[in-house]
Amino acid sequence: MRRHKSTSSSNMKKYIKSPEQKESNKYTENNPKENEIYNLNDDDFKTAIIKILTELRENSDRQLNEFRSYVTKEFDTIKKNQTEILEMKNTIEEIKKNLDALNSRADNMEERISNLEDGNIELLQAEEEREARLKRNEETLRELSDTIRRCNVRIIGIPEGEEKEKGAENLFKEIMAENFPNLVREMDLQVTEANRSPNFINARRPTPRHIVVKLAKVNDKEKILRTARLKKLTYKGTPIRLSADFSAETLQARREWNDIFKNLKDKNLQPRILYPAKISFKYYGEIKTFPDKQKLREFIATKPPLQEILRKTLIPEKSKKGKGLQNQEQRR
Amino acid sequence: MRRHKSTSSSNMKKYIKSPEQKESNKYTENNPKENEIYNLNDDDFKTAIIKILTELRENSDRQLNEFRSYVTKEFDTIKKNQTEILEMKNTIEEIKKNLDALNSRADNMEERISNLEDGNIELLQAEEEREARLKRNEETLRELSDTIRRCNVRIIGIPEGEEKEKGAENLFKEIMAENFPNLVREMDLQVTEANRSPNFINARRPTPRHIVVKLAKVNDKEKILRTARLKKLTYKGTPIRLSADFSAETLQARREWNDIFKNLKDKNLQPRILYPAKISFKYYGEIKTFPDKQKLREFIATKPPLQEILRKTLIPEKSKKGKGLQNQEQRR
Amino acid sequence: MRRHKSTSSSNMKKYIKSPEQKESNKYTENNPKENEIYNLNDDDFKTAIIKILTELRENSDRQLNEFRSYVTKEFDTIKKNQTEILEMKNTIEEIKKNLDALNSRADNMEERISNLEDGNIELLQAEEEREARLKRNEETLRELSDTIRRCNVRIIGIPEGEEKEKGAENLFKEIMAENFPNLVREMDLQVTEANRSPNFINARRPTPRHIVVKLAKVNDKEKILRTARLKKLTYKGTPIRLSADFSAETLQARREWNDIFKNLKDKNLQPRILYPAKISFKYYGEIKTFPDKQKLREFIATKPPLQEILRKTLIPEKSKKGKGLQNQEQRR
Repeated sequence: MRRHKSTSSSNMKKYIKSPEQKESNKYTENNPKENEIYNLNDDDFKTAIIKILTELRENSDRQLNEFRSYVTKEFDTIKKNQTEILEMKNTIEEIKKNLDALNSRADNMEERISNLEDGNIELLQAEEEREARLKRNEETLRELSDTIRRCNVRIIGIPEGEEKEKGAENLFKEIMAENFPNLVREMDLQVTEANRSPNFINARRPTPRHIVVKLAKVNDKEKILRTARLKKLTYKGTPIRLSADFSAETLQARREWNDIFKNLKDKNLQPRILYPAKISFKYYGEIKTFPDKQKLREFIATKPPLQEILRKTLIPEKSKKGKGLQNQEQRR
Repeated sequence: MRRHKSTSSSNMKKYIKSPEQKESNKYTENNPKENEIYNLNDDDFKTAIIKILTELRENSDRQLNEFRSYVTKEFDTIKKNQTEILEMKNTIEEIKKNLDALNSRADNMEERISNLEDGNIELLQAEEEREARLKRNEETLRELSDTIRRCNVRIIGIPEGEEKEKGAENLFKEIMAENFPNLVREMDLQVTEANRSPNFINARRPTPRHIVVKLAKVNDKEKILRTARLKKLTYKGTPIRLSADFSAETLQARREWNDIFKNLKDKNLQPRILYPAKISFKYYGEIKTFPDKQKLREFIATKPPLQEILRKTLIPEKSKKGKGLQNQEQRR
Repeated sequence: MRRHKSTSSSNMKKYIKSPEQKESNKYTENNPKENEIYNLNDDDFKTAIIKILTELRENSDRQLNEFRSYVTKEFDTIKKNQTEILEMKNTIEEIKKNLDALNSRADNMEERISNLEDGNIELLQAEEEREARLKRNEETLRELSDTIRRCNVRIIGIPEGEEKEKGAENLFKEIMAENFPNLVREMDLQVTEANRSPNFINARRPTPRHIVVKLAKVNDKEKILRTARLKKLTYKGTPIRLSADFSAETLQARREWNDIFKNLKDKNLQPRILYPAKISFKYYGEIKTFPDKQKLREFIATKPPLQEILRKTLIPEKSKKGKGLQNQEQRR
């Protein structure tokens, strides 16, 4: 297009004359001839007139032809541009079709996205419900796991194989006789079951497995553990320990109080771990109980002395993301 | 563009002559001159011819120049439009590039949406499976929860603290002696465990917590509850109640039969609630059992007398969305 | 547009003359006249000149008018195209607006898609966690279900109703007396509970339900089952079987060893199924234990004799997708 334009511009110039140019032509070229012609005889006049007429006609034809040729060329250029316009028009039509198609695609996509978003909201709600059910199930499971362990006593520190000949039940009875002779005499101790736990040996475990003894009565277990807390226990002279039996989750939750428990005990606040995993201690003569660290944190917020005692063990809740899961990973 | 057009239109008018105009020119302007010129002498004729020739040439030049000027102006206008076309062409090129980019983006988005949709289908299938497993787990949990409660008897109505000194087990034995002297004599009642439940006190609860007694044998529990149904029970003269012990879910499911149970009992249809939460009653001498309300609804659909009895309590299943969840919320 | 173009082209032709055409005109048309005119008298010359002048003027006017008319027509055509260009310009403006809108929509959609994708990643992570928790719950449930069945013995093959009068507990005691007279004498067998399981009758079930007997001590159960493995048991002379009691999941997992167990037994490799569902057997004097088929497959990979024995029963792991679920479906 740029090409046509410049050509046209240069062509045009020879037809564009300033008014001054035209005036000068008129007087320097035509007037002399007019004066001369009066002095001619008739034949010469005729010849001159014929010549002038011929020139006039030729000149007029030439100018018109030149102009025609210029205009024609310009029109050619314009026609060429028209062809381009035609192409543009076609291009625009294509663009419009493409745009229509894109608009349809966008409509379609927006609907699909909306459906996905709606579906996501439903899914998230369903997930929330399932999450709540899962949590409730976990709690129920933990309660059940703890409940079926309520009659259990764990014996910790008996070398592997020691129970092989006499059986775990008799081994437990020997321990009772060795450590709680009075208790054994006064109660009719019934054992439902006694076993190593877990029932397989993990070669990488450095300590012997616990022996889990299931008693017939919860009361018996409690009496034994209460008495056991008051003295050092032995089996054939070697120190052993007795403990209650909890689900992995409860055990982990109780263990998380360990450091705080020590701090409180050092300060003589008489801490206790209550079932399933609460801590209680005496504060100004009153027994305070807390189901979790957050509740304890809230309590000490206005008690600088307690803050000082628990300064190192009850660190403020940071962004402990996924902590619940980690607990599960650290299972016994 | 509109501007150029109107200018051109007005310019054009002076060059467009109707055929009539041209005819009138010819006879009113030229013919008189033609007649006059024959009467002129030679010099005057020469002068006239020269004048006519000059006028003719000037006229022709002027007309052509005017036309040139018009055409030139028009061409200028057209060139200006050509510049606009050039701009349009550039714009169209940009649009095409933008369209191409948009098409690519749309392709990309459609693929991502399809991936999301496919992912969603997989997720929903996985969710369905998990939902089924969750449900199965809930059922198993409920069964387990009920199973470990099978030997339990709940004592309802004993004031808090009453068991403090003698212990819950002895309190239970007192109740047995007070209410079932014969039964106690004939069976060797073994208690595994006796406790308040839950093991913490909810200050907002207006009634004392139940005492849950775990017996050694299911048979003992059943004998006690069977006998308890036949008489009003007391503890130190105050009325109390004994009941079986169920999981929260089973208890809730059993409670939902309460109104229907009353209706059926009023009509002497001998209703009974069976484990875990079925209802049975006598209908024309035959014992009918229904695991849920829907099954009962289907049964009475063809029994107008039963429909009349249960008119107020067995309302038709409406759009009770999320009912399963509500049950969970209304736990004991 | 195509229409205008062709019209213009044909119009143009009469104004375009080749140089040759112009030359021939000059000599065949004008020269003869020029010669003739010298022979005219003055009046005739005047008349001829006037005529020539008139023709010249008319001719010039006509040509210019024709050219004007052509140019005007062309301009008209061009103006019409200009109108189209105007329309195109408007169309392009609309397209640009539409494109802008589409770009905005695309931006918006891309953001929504990204949000969905991000949400999906979070959801999938949450799902993975929940999946892990669900699996852990299932395992815990299975363990619990097995644990509360540890004291149970299943009696298989007692016709329905047989226990109606004497009770399931007494029926079990009769079986003990009939089959293990010595064992009964030496141990104080305590039964906690004895029942048909499940507690409802499935009319389509062709065999009588099992009787599940819960003993007070795990040891008692184990002694009974150990002795039972050594002899054929009967109840009133009819063959019956005793078995341990497991959760549906454990039972199914144990059953999946059945064919392999038979193969190994046939080859005298002394196979045993261990709790919960492991297989063990003697291989070159050493007891090997495998928790699942995959581990066993890995073991026999380098043992062609074992491969031969288990050729038909331990088929290579193919794409057994969703097998875990199928197991659940095939529950007892």
